[in-house]
Amino acid sequence: MADSAAQDDIGADALAGHLDLEGLLEAGDLRGVDHWLAVRDLLTVADELARLQPAERAVVFRLLRKDRASDAFEALSPVHQAELLEALGDTSVHDLFYALDAADRAELLDEMPANVAARLLAQLPPEARQYTNILLGYPEYSAGRAMSPRYVSIPETMTASDALLRVRAAKLRPREVLVLPVVDATRHLVGVVDLPDVVTADGDTPVGALIRSETYSVPVGEDQEVAARLMQEANLVALPVLDTEDRLVGVLTVDDAMEIIEEEETEDAARAGGAEPISVPYLDAGVFLLARARGTWLLLLIVAAALTVNVLQAFESTLEQVVTLAVFIPLLIGTGGNSGAQAATSVVRAMALGEVRIKDLPRILRRELMVGFLLGLILGAIAYPIVGLVFGWTFAAVVSLTLLALCSWASFAGGLLPVLARQAGIDPAVVSAPLITTLVDASGLIIYFLIARVLLGL
Amino acid sequence: MADSAAQDDIGADALAGHLDLEGLLEAGDLRGVDHWLAVRDLLTVADELARLQPAERAVVFRLLRKDRASDAFEALSPVHQAELLEALGDTSVHDLFYALDAADRAELLDEMPANVAARLLAQLPPEARQYTNILLGYPEYSAGRAMSPRYVSIPETMTASDALLRVRAAKLRPREVLVLPVVDATRHLVGVVDLPDVVTADGDTPVGALIRSETYSVPVGEDQEVAARLMQEANLVALPVLDTEDRLVGVLTVDDAMEIIEEEETEDAARAGGAEPISVPYLDAGVFLLARARGTWLLLLIVAAALTVNVLQAFESTLEQVVTLAVFIPLLIGTGGNSGAQAATSVVRAMALGEVRIKDLPRILRRELMVGFLLGLILGAIAYPIVGLVFGWTFAAVVSLTLLALCSWASFAGGLLPVLARQAGIDPAVVSAPLITTLVDASGLIIYFLIARVLLGL
Repeated sequence: MADSAAQDDIGADALAGHLDLEGLLEAGDLRGVDHWLAVRDLLTVADELARLQPAERAVVFRLLRKDRASDAFEALSPVHQAELLEALGDTSVHDLFYALDAADRAELLDEMPANVAARLLAQLPPEARQYTNILLGYPEYSAGRAMSPRYVSIPETMTASDALLRVRAAKLRPREVLVLPVVDATRHLVGVVDLPDVVTADGDTPVGALIRSETYSVPVGEDQEVAARLMQEANLVALPVLDTEDRLVGVLTVDDAMEIIEEEETEDAARAGGAEPISVPYLDAGVFLLARARGTWLLLLIVAAALTVNVLQAFESTLEQVVTLAVFIPLLIGTGGNSGAQAATSVVRAMALGEVRIKDLPRILRRELMVGFLLGLILGAIAYPIVGLVFGWTFAAVVSLTLLALCSWASFAGGLLPVLARQAGIDPAVVSAPLITTLVDASGLIIYFLIARVLLGL
Repeated sequence: MADSAAQDDIGADALAGHLDLEGLLEAGDLRGVDHWLAVRDLLTVADELARLQPAERAVVFRLLRKDRASDAFEALSPVHQAELLEALGDTSVHDLFYALDAADRAELLDEMPANVAARLLAQLPPEARQYTNILLGYPEYSAGRAMSPRYVSIPETMTASDALLRVRAAKLRPREVLVLPVVDATRHLVGVVDLPDVVTADGDTPVGALIRSETYSVPVGEDQEVAARLMQEANLVALPVLDTEDRLVGVLTVDDAMEIIEEEETEDAARAGGAEPISVPYLDAGVFLLARARGTWLLLLIVAAALTVNVLQAFESTLEQVVTLAVFIPLLIGTGGNSGAQAATSVVRAMALGEVRIKDLPRILRRELMVGFLLGLILGAIAYPIVGLVFGWTFAAVVSLTLLALCSWASFAGGLLPVLARQAGIDPAVVSAPLITTLVDASGLIIYFLIARVLLGL
């Protein structure tokens, strides 16, 4: 990330004598807040709103110009939207809710208490309510839940100029008509046309002749991440969503796909750190929520780590004979763990990007074994003279050989485990650095003590 | 990731008696390859091409229909494009190169030997060469290098119908005209209009009246990730790029933004695993390239880990008195490391998303200290009776107290380090699980032995 400059604009402002939004609120300077809101772009406003306490957020929100308020509302996360609706608690709530698109409405309803959700739904105009209900009928995290149920479909025999008239008449949001699905008489998808191609074509060209050479679509029950990744890979701005009879039911738009990808990357980041994902922004998550998200994994990992206690107990007599062996335990198992974490991270990412599949396992293992061996060789060669001068040359040989064996083994295990996870139907991202480190610890100790026993003649 | 089903389609196919592309090639069944190519969508073709060896890739590529070939070429990574051009080595090379957009051409040229790059450039038609050269003039990873230098800008006084005529005349790619920049007489950006709004408006409406309420733009030298994240946050399908005099020079399109985000996420994933990012797909990266990307960090980490040797040497007499103390070293420092990694990962991600800023440090530290304390309390309480029954109650107290202190301290450090990194102008993502684990190890040992000395009366 090189976004530190952008992030810290506000800080620079404050240093220059201008207070930021939080500062203005603390100072009780509502005219200042008003001015601040007027000169900032919508994204900055939404970012700053997200940072406020719920009550303050409602105060600032009321100061926004009406047209900006609904855009700012849309830019907030569902959690903040829900808090804000509660804090506002008046008639403007319905307008804000209505101004959202159907997918955002469905997401927000998931965050609301059931009785409030039912009331909000009941007060929507019939068409908007129907669209929202359609989406709520599909499972969470499916393409159907995230799609826009509003689209302009064009019969393949329609001319380009008639298609433009239909787009005009539909009065949808710009992003809902960038790509137009083309259907046959039975609502089956024939292909898609790009709006610019319809605009550029001669008016009497049949739309069927403008269809993109490649048509992608997903079933309505498809995982939303798979759909979003498909759009990312194939450079699509809209993806048709089909029901089980292959009839068009909606369109996933690129802005929603980008949001889905951001959410999924946040989940993967949490998993990579050995914790359960949470759906709340970091500063909003309570201490107990954070502790629960981390505690489950931490407990599981400490149970796995208990193995190291057993291993060391088994070698306790060796340790008593040469206490110095204990001195290198953290360095050796730490390095093994790091090497394993590096391997696991690159394989997990390559699997997420679809570069690597289960059947590539032999290739992965061969590569990781070679990389680990090479790294172990280098580290061992560097460690040998240093350890030798202080602890003697036999001891140095123990440390260097252990580094070689441990790096090779950890790197191998780091390549193996994500593939095994996928084969078992588990998200490979659970093979986190903390997990691999913990798993390598016990086996690393066994390797270390076996090498030590042989070389030191214990 | 729930994409295992999609990933393994090919595997299922092969089991059902149909060979996949690699299998068909091995069997030398070129007619089979031809059929395979004809019935697969472009993305699958590109994915499979990416998995082949360079020579095989060229063979298969020649079998593609001409119009699909250039699309498939575009979908390959620059590394594979460069290899393929080399393997093809004939006149079709120039057509493929010309069919790319300017940004893709610039990226590909970076991968080619200088003399080949110069020859490819020289053989482009003048206009395409000029566009490519403009982009090559901006630094790598800047918005200027990634943007499209082709766009249709509209004077604010032009009518909607004239604007549509201009779009028609420009003959750009669909994705280059989804959003149209609106400029004044001096080429300064006034705002942007969505093509659908121009299509929907009355023909004689001046375009200036259709401008979006919020206009975002970035300077040409802006980091490409900052630009892409802005598009993600503000739901934009195109972002105007301005020169130092605030004049429009190009437009970043949403498909390029999604690609940039994917690249940056891949970099962050590598960093999170404690390795340098590589720009090559995993299976294409040579063993030496992988070893170099990981070796630098591994060396740095082992130097930091050498501290643990010093700490344990300092406590060697304590260890000699109670060898059992060594038995708990891996479990204790491992758990501390895991707790620190969890904290660091969540703070790094929150900073990447802009949820958390440097000035939030006190809040972060307070939260992390509380979460760590809570987790340490739980783990300590669970460990106490188990350790007590086997090793005695004083020893159990040492282990439980160390868990409490270590989880608190590691979680605190995990919250602190990413913020310090950003303050120092370093990418917070370098505060990886391996780094934090290694840093916590030495301090964790000191805490452990001090507690042990006091409670065991050594």
